[in-house]
Amino acid sequence: MTAAVSAIDAGRLWDDVMSLAAITDPDRPYTRRSFSARFLQGRDWLRQRFEASGMTVRLDAAANMIARLEGSVMDAQPIVLGSHSDTVPSGGRFDGTAGILAALEAVRGLQAEGYRARHPIEIVDFLAEEPSDYGISCVGSRAMAGALDERMLACSDARGETLSAAIARVGGDPAHLSSARRSDVAGYLELHIEQGMMLQRSGIDLGIVTSIAGIARVEVIFAGAADHAGTTPMSLRRDAGLAAATLSSFAAERAHEFAVRGEGYFVATTGVLSIEPNAANVVPGRARMIFDIRAEAPASLDEFIALLQAESAVIAAQRAVDRAAFAILTRTDPVPCSDHLRDVLARSAEKLNYSTLPLASGAGHDAAFVARFAPSAMLFIPCRDGKSHTPEEWAEPHALAAGAATLLEAIRLMDGRNA
Amino acid sequence: MTAAVSAIDAGRLWDDVMSLAAITDPDRPYTRRSFSARFLQGRDWLRQRFEASGMTVRLDAAANMIARLEGSVMDAQPIVLGSHSDTVPSGGRFDGTAGILAALEAVRGLQAEGYRARHPIEIVDFLAEEPSDYGISCVGSRAMAGALDERMLACSDARGETLSAAIARVGGDPAHLSSARRSDVAGYLELHIEQGMMLQRSGIDLGIVTSIAGIARVEVIFAGAADHAGTTPMSLRRDAGLAAATLSSFAAERAHEFAVRGEGYFVATTGVLSIEPNAANVVPGRARMIFDIRAEAPASLDEFIALLQAESAVIAAQRAVDRAAFAILTRTDPVPCSDHLRDVLARSAEKLNYSTLPLASGAGHDAAFVARFAPSAMLFIPCRDGKSHTPEEWAEPHALAAGAATLLEAIRLMDGRNA
Repeated sequence: MTAAVSAIDAGRLWDDVMSLAAITDPDRPYTRRSFSARFLQGRDWLRQRFEASGMTVRLDAAANMIARLEGSVMDAQPIVLGSHSDTVPSGGRFDGTAGILAALEAVRGLQAEGYRARHPIEIVDFLAEEPSDYGISCVGSRAMAGALDERMLACSDARGETLSAAIARVGGDPAHLSSARRSDVAGYLELHIEQGMMLQRSGIDLGIVTSIAGIARVEVIFAGAADHAGTTPMSLRRDAGLAAATLSSFAAERAHEFAVRGEGYFVATTGVLSIEPNAANVVPGRARMIFDIRAEAPASLDEFIALLQAESAVIAAQRAVDRAAFAILTRTDPVPCSDHLRDVLARSAEKLNYSTLPLASGAGHDAAFVARFAPSAMLFIPCRDGKSHTPEEWAEPHALAAGAATLLEAIRLMDGRNA
Repeated sequence: MTAAVSAIDAGRLWDDVMSLAAITDPDRPYTRRSFSARFLQGRDWLRQRFEASGMTVRLDAAANMIARLEGSVMDAQPIVLGSHSDTVPSGGRFDGTAGILAALEAVRGLQAEGYRARHPIEIVDFLAEEPSDYGISCVGSRAMAGALDERMLACSDARGETLSAAIARVGGDPAHLSSARRSDVAGYLELHIEQGMMLQRSGIDLGIVTSIAGIARVEVIFAGAADHAGTTPMSLRRDAGLAAATLSSFAAERAHEFAVRGEGYFVATTGVLSIEPNAANVVPGRARMIFDIRAEAPASLDEFIALLQAESAVIAAQRAVDRAAFAILTRTDPVPCSDHLRDVLARSAEKLNYSTLPLASGAGHDAAFVARFAPSAMLFIPCRDGKSHTPEEWAEPHALAAGAATLLEAIRLMDGRNA
């Protein structure tokens, strides 16, 4: 990284990130759960920062907070940037907030240069990107894409409040949710920490996302017999835990093969594996697993799920257990980023002498929903050891500044082209 | 099974088993936890049944309850039978109680026949055979063998009561525990439900135990990195769950080989397998396993443990995780039953036309400790589908009666020979 960071004030951006991070549940940093009082406190702070930069702030019907700087050309479509200010429990200081605050710094940088955009510029704090207490993630971006349906709105948290009521409570208008839908967006850019190790390992400054991986979650349950571990001969066992272990090893082996066969990014994980009764002297009678599968190619998702389905049946037969469940819990298709906006980001970085790496996003993002109604692209900045969703999460101040500077250049390019 | 059951009153025995089972915590049948008020209530009932049969009842210093019928020959060593009246939480109606009540029925049968034994006959309700709230099992038989040490006596339950205090509370005298040690026992017989499926599967009436398997418990912990399941490429993972799955499959494969290689009974189980954080979207960063290994040959135990130790290191290296722990939590040697008493049981069954099968006990029993100070043997009766430690546990009335009749004949043989 050799570029001067132009109009970007790296110190101001860093202070903003640390100030928003400091608004956390004190007993479990860093926590600002969507819909909580702490979350609203964070938004109050954000609103003040937006307004201090001359932006007007509103909530849409989905309680997305939208800051806007008007453009000079009547009826020009807005250039939109954004991310989210909510966190997972005991999360980090950068996931989400980096994208909002780098966008704000880019706007401030343009203003410092005396640049008057022709397009309006909007920065969106999407509501509840992380899995919320209502079981739904990407609440705000789903709504903006018209993909937040009645079933989701009826989901409730542990206290029985529905997502619909929660959206109203934080300032939204769920009865008129369709008013949050957008068809006027010129393009969308989201900066995010990589949450992976590719940039750090390669020593490259910025990642330009090729696509956001499709995600499937598959649940498999094996049911055997919880027999006495001492008195049940090996040949008479119906060991559900052993069936699960066998399937987990199989899944990892095949995932390694898929990852290197040249059809794009691919990972699969046995993230959940629970056996019952989980007692030393009892043969496991039941085992539940959840596989998390992510792929850049939709066909790879389907192929892997089919392999799991076939192999789990084979293993159940071999181990004399029942495959009591094989369920695709969720499945989303991969979302390719806009070729044009990827090029805009690449040219912006190049102008600033930042090195870039095209890479897939293994994590989901609001951009995947925005891509349904507007050209969208994502810019990744490196984060230490790939750690995310943990207090250890860390991005260097110069990396944040480099990302903000690249956004600034990208806005200028988009503003020139689409005027 | 063709024999008439001689002096054994099958209905009376069955009624006794059901009556003792009815003394249970009402909200979780069948539960009579050692040291509890319910346990003492069961012992009160037992004491009355013993005394109604003309036996005198005492507690030794380890709070073993010992019923005794005097013999006709001065200073003859007692023939001892027994088992235990405590249960696991939500256990069954036969495990332990069958052995005590079948012995009582045998004594009553001898009396009904007008048989006056030369040897005293004792029936022992050993204290706390099942794992107690103090973490120790076979409390009473350990004490009788001089194997209940100070470290065990100092173990405490969740409320902070020590095992020593608990023994005193239920009528023992832990300060004079050595007085419970025995060196005067002519022979010990214990009837127990099989807790396995060999008798049911083979249609054989009774099992004559060759030896009580040695048991080892081995804990293995793998520590990896709890990285994001979406953003961490397969090649950069340190998946502790996958290491555990691989080791579990290895252990099962080798256990199957050990079981059929002709060196006696062998089983191994991954009974405990827990991964952290056990979340769908996180690569498992930590995995803990407990292996339960049981063998009739001590060398097989050691060989299997050595294999686990070597392979867990290999797997840790392959999966780029640390083997954070490899610990032998407990290890007991196999205990062979007395050849002479096995022969006594076989001849007794033969006389009654019961078919018998020599088989190892995969479960531990009080007899394993009694064998340290007296010739000991065990008689297994079939139980349905091998179920034990569960309310479904079931033995047929005729199987109980067959076991009691065989004990009766065995007492007569022992009494004749050792007079």
